[in-house]
Amino acid sequence: MKKIAVLTSGGDAPGMNAALRAVVRTATYYGMEVYGAKRGFDGLIQGDIYKMKSYSVSNIISLGGTILKTARSVDFHAQEGRDKAYEQLQSRGIEGLIVIGGDGSMMASDRFSKAYDFPIIGIPGTINNDLYGTDFTIGFDTAVNTALDAIDKIRDTANSHDRIFFVEVMGRDAGYIAIQTGIGGGAELVMVPETETSIQDVISTLQAGWDRAKSASIVVTAEGNAEGSAIDIAQKVKSHINNKDIKITTLGHIQRGGSPSAFDRILSSRLGLNAVEALRSGKKGVMIGIIKDEVVYTPLDIAVNTPKPLNDELVRMVEILNS
Amino acid sequence: MKKIAVLTSGGDAPGMNAALRAVVRTATYYGMEVYGAKRGFDGLIQGDIYKMKSYSVSNIISLGGTILKTARSVDFHAQEGRDKAYEQLQSRGIEGLIVIGGDGSMMASDRFSKAYDFPIIGIPGTINNDLYGTDFTIGFDTAVNTALDAIDKIRDTANSHDRIFFVEVMGRDAGYIAIQTGIGGGAELVMVPETETSIQDVISTLQAGWDRAKSASIVVTAEGNAEGSAIDIAQKVKSHINNKDIKITTLGHIQRGGSPSAFDRILSSRLGLNAVEALRSGKKGVMIGIIKDEVVYTPLDIAVNTPKPLNDELVRMVEILNS
Amino acid sequence: MKKIAVLTSGGDAPGMNAALRAVVRTATYYGMEVYGAKRGFDGLIQGDIYKMKSYSVSNIISLGGTILKTARSVDFHAQEGRDKAYEQLQSRGIEGLIVIGGDGSMMASDRFSKAYDFPIIGIPGTINNDLYGTDFTIGFDTAVNTALDAIDKIRDTANSHDRIFFVEVMGRDAGYIAIQTGIGGGAELVMVPETETSIQDVISTLQAGWDRAKSASIVVTAEGNAEGSAIDIAQKVKSHINNKDIKITTLGHIQRGGSPSAFDRILSSRLGLNAVEALRSGKKGVMIGIIKDEVVYTPLDIAVNTPKPLNDELVRMVEILNS
Amino acid sequence: MKKIAVLTSGGDAPGMNAALRAVVRTATYYGMEVYGAKRGFDGLIQGDIYKMKSYSVSNIISLGGTILKTARSVDFHAQEGRDKAYEQLQSRGIEGLIVIGGDGSMMASDRFSKAYDFPIIGIPGTINNDLYGTDFTIGFDTAVNTALDAIDKIRDTANSHDRIFFVEVMGRDAGYIAIQTGIGGGAELVMVPETETSIQDVISTLQAGWDRAKSASIVVTAEGNAEGSAIDIAQKVKSHINNKDIKITTLGHIQRGGSPSAFDRILSSRLGLNAVEALRSGKKGVMIGIIKDEVVYTPLDIAVNTPKPLNDELVRMVEILNS
Repeated sequence: MKKIAVLTSGGDAPGMNAALRAVVRTATYYGMEVYGAKRGFDGLIQGDIYKMKSYSVSNIISLGGTILKTARSVDFHAQEGRDKAYEQLQSRGIEGLIVIGGDGSMMASDRFSKAYDFPIIGIPGTINNDLYGTDFTIGFDTAVNTALDAIDKIRDTANSHDRIFFVEVMGRDAGYIAIQTGIGGGAELVMVPETETSIQDVISTLQAGWDRAKSASIVVTAEGNAEGSAIDIAQKVKSHINNKDIKITTLGHIQRGGSPSAFDRILSSRLGLNAVEALRSGKKGVMIGIIKDEVVYTPLDIAVNTPKPLNDELVRMVEILNS
Repeated sequence: MKKIAVLTSGGDAPGMNAALRAVVRTATYYGMEVYGAKRGFDGLIQGDIYKMKSYSVSNIISLGGTILKTARSVDFHAQEGRDKAYEQLQSRGIEGLIVIGGDGSMMASDRFSKAYDFPIIGIPGTINNDLYGTDFTIGFDTAVNTALDAIDKIRDTANSHDRIFFVEVMGRDAGYIAIQTGIGGGAELVMVPETETSIQDVISTLQAGWDRAKSASIVVTAEGNAEGSAIDIAQKVKSHINNKDIKITTLGHIQRGGSPSAFDRILSSRLGLNAVEALRSGKKGVMIGIIKDEVVYTPLDIAVNTPKPLNDELVRMVEILNS
Repeated sequence: MKKIAVLTSGGDAPGMNAALRAVVRTATYYGMEVYGAKRGFDGLIQGDIYKMKSYSVSNIISLGGTILKTARSVDFHAQEGRDKAYEQLQSRGIEGLIVIGGDGSMMASDRFSKAYDFPIIGIPGTINNDLYGTDFTIGFDTAVNTALDAIDKIRDTANSHDRIFFVEVMGRDAGYIAIQTGIGGGAELVMVPETETSIQDVISTLQAGWDRAKSASIVVTAEGNAEGSAIDIAQKVKSHINNKDIKITTLGHIQRGGSPSAFDRILSSRLGLNAVEALRSGKKGVMIGIIKDEVVYTPLDIAVNTPKPLNDELVRMVEILNS
Repeated sequence: MKKIAVLTSGGDAPGMNAALRAVVRTATYYGMEVYGAKRGFDGLIQGDIYKMKSYSVSNIISLGGTILKTARSVDFHAQEGRDKAYEQLQSRGIEGLIVIGGDGSMMASDRFSKAYDFPIIGIPGTINNDLYGTDFTIGFDTAVNTALDAIDKIRDTANSHDRIFFVEVMGRDAGYIAIQTGIGGGAELVMVPETETSIQDVISTLQAGWDRAKSASIVVTAEGNAEGSAIDIAQKVKSHINNKDIKITTLGHIQRGGSPSAFDRILSSRLGLNAVEALRSGKKGVMIGIIKDEVVYTPLDIAVNTPKPLNDELVRMVEILNS
């Protein structure tokens, strides 16, 4: 394989640039040409593709976001769009593609890879950590540290005012960010989509804390909860404990940005390096991941469609340590 | 003066602990006894008052929040509450009081100081910087740095996705946090309560940016804007530019917490030290502040009731540098 | 087991407080009494031991250092000291001990545990990550992030001045901090004790960079290198390339402190929780660790005496990505 | 004035990019052309000069270092070098120059401005804050915050081990960084070049702390102290108190880098904006500064040659609050 392309797709995640850098540097190391497509599959379709050199990725390992830009492509959902994308690759003699993105991007890659029998390696890049086939996705560790830093700040105010805070973190349908942030922040309760927590449970936990003279409490809620957003949950709880000072914070987009943590830089570098070697060795239609410190490959459709359960140990930790 | 008390009141602000430390250490330095009341005026009323020593404030200079805790006292608004507070002070032989807080706390201090002819020095502690009689209030610089750090993170995502972000910062009726965060974050537009910005202005500014091929934009809005919250404003703007990717973030309570910046630690230390010396020299019923690097004293009611205009230079900077 | 003790020993590491909190909370959860000894084995010998409750460890999860304080005990090396320590435990009816510390502390624990047949569980707490029997030690991830933050700052200056920087990081005889910091910081070269790097190698790598018009370079060196400290190495290199602007920075003790990262808080919490359960289940004389996401137990002497090699993958990453 | 140039010179400082951005944007706002010279006066001499547009400075406000790069020019010290620089300016029709740098750069600017009667405005950019004619120089606030963050981390270890730390900060012959870091970090003692502190003073202060059962101490020393470096001072102190655990840390180059603080971004933006307006209004041979929140202009030679004393209030604060 002499020419490959790389793109970032879907929501941005800290570490995407580090992965991109690793792809470009590794391809260069092996004497391959490497092309970057701008704005995900949209740029691929439109031919917004440029040759990248080793120096194109200098000093980007510490940057959040993605210098290639990213998008959720609508056109790529249509046959016509995918045909054009294929032509763009063909016309440049590009033989393999590396897609850095989340589950939507892996799904699109799967379809494309199969339809055109085109070698694609997916790199899991999403703060949500909701892809099967890897212990951690790119951006997750940074997002957790950002959310944790926010919780630490909120704890200052909660303690000073003897308040209850409901803090909503990102994660879509997955509770990974919530549970790790909750453990790390010593949250009195964590509500995740993977396990059922009723409003009554919330009230009981808070009540138990006050009975032990705990004056301030933080409840971390994942955005995908059955009981709704932090605002919804706080509203339902409020009516039962109306003499308490309750505040709500939705951490929002700060969780997506920022310079990647050491963990994310190293994870991204390792995935990027091995993704190029995977293409070289003839792998295709798989997502690269790291499970128990080993590089592994999972068919793209399985990576997307297999549920990834929360580690029970984490759930147990909240119960024993924080309540 | 041999015995004084100190309390923190109203919303917490980073640097309150540094000010408290300075009060305790300075009083100790001058051989005075110093008492801390918990939870603002509530603790004063209830006699939740304890003697503080130099070591009581060890290692708190770097902590957000307030170790004395704080509250917005309802009881202190009633004559009965204030009478009790006065008795608590009298019964302990306390001759002066230092109140660290925002405008509500300064107002309450003014009333109390006048009614009982009791020496009180106010120290301006609020992230909003909305008190006349000081260039900066305690916590403001830290809040701006926290908001700026958030804007930097959001910029990563805005650039990666070519998005428009509306970011709401705190500040109540004042635009100080918004304007400084906006300048520091290179926001394309800043909406503050002090100057009128119509929805049409917002649209024009954004449009002008796109005409110059600016793909991502950040609009910082203060919470006290006439046009409403960031959500309201984005809603109004959206209908005019419906083909654009718009996101909204309300930074919320993270702006109140965190370890104080160097600026806030030094400001707080200086105000705390001088507040004790002011009590010793017979000052009363004034808020201490620093204007153009000089320690100044402003009658409490004037500090609260005089409007504090935004520096025109700052407004000009947004226009020339960021648009 | 009804009564246990816990202490922190050796050099402090961020996350020790989180581990301590987990030990206290888990013991409390199981209805056990838990005692904390101050200043490591010294406090144990001197009977500086106090009962800890759930609230004793409130809000310490985010704190660097250790609230129990720590020390490298000289007295514990003597039979007399160990006898006294044993008496202190016996007299209080304490049946098990948890020691949070590095290799010296694990060695001392091993000797004590065997001599008195006393149940001890070791928890690996050291920024150096140099203990066999766990993928990561407490404090390592935080130290790497701190060092990385420093490298990012130094990169600003290196790039602005087209300079070469030699940056020495901690790690004693292990190159873990160096290699991870080097990868994450995009260092042009990393020198670790585990592999030989001659001065000629350094010069060649730097020269190769300049030949490719790379103007700024960062060399990360571990403190345990055969060629000496960063100062020594820079001196040797300097004479060969005397027309270049060379600077040296020894990061020093900032790497030991600071609020623990999310990773370290969760690792510490998990180890602390499981250590108590290990004592309850009758384990003794072992160090707890996590290998490939599984909790494992390694006899204390083996944990200390078995070399822990650097992951080859990491060495490969520096070569391919950074040169 | 239709064409101006800008350069950064001397040691880099966080905020230089923000100042550069303000210069370029303001010049553009007024319809002027603006040229950037690379690597300080060296680039000017060599004609390494390029036209800058508004977008040339997009997203640089948050970056440490300087995108124009910087250097301490040797050639500019010679008449020949300065002649060449003048020719480069003349040949491009450049009518004014803005120099962002420290005292060496201001001195060189003064000589050049006078010799060729060429309009130059200096912008004080140095972390040392050692220029007369401005309350604060660009980069100072960021450097203090970086040093303070380091002190906070070191405090964790100092407290955990009951240690004495000698921490050396930058500042050349000025004690500004030391005194502010010392106050903010609650250092038990601060040694600055502006006031004499004998080794005996150090010992007495430390001794007084131990007498009050203070177990850990931090001494902040400025690099320009008469008693030498932190290593020298610690060595001298050590012999008098040999039973104490003493550690030394030289913070070094981390103090120069990093994303600028809010304060530095706003200061830099304001100085850059006003510097362009100063050129337009016919000012020349002056350094722009801000004193007591007013923009002021000081002849370049006076800015360099007038001593800038430490604020007595700061010295007093260390004495009363930290000892």
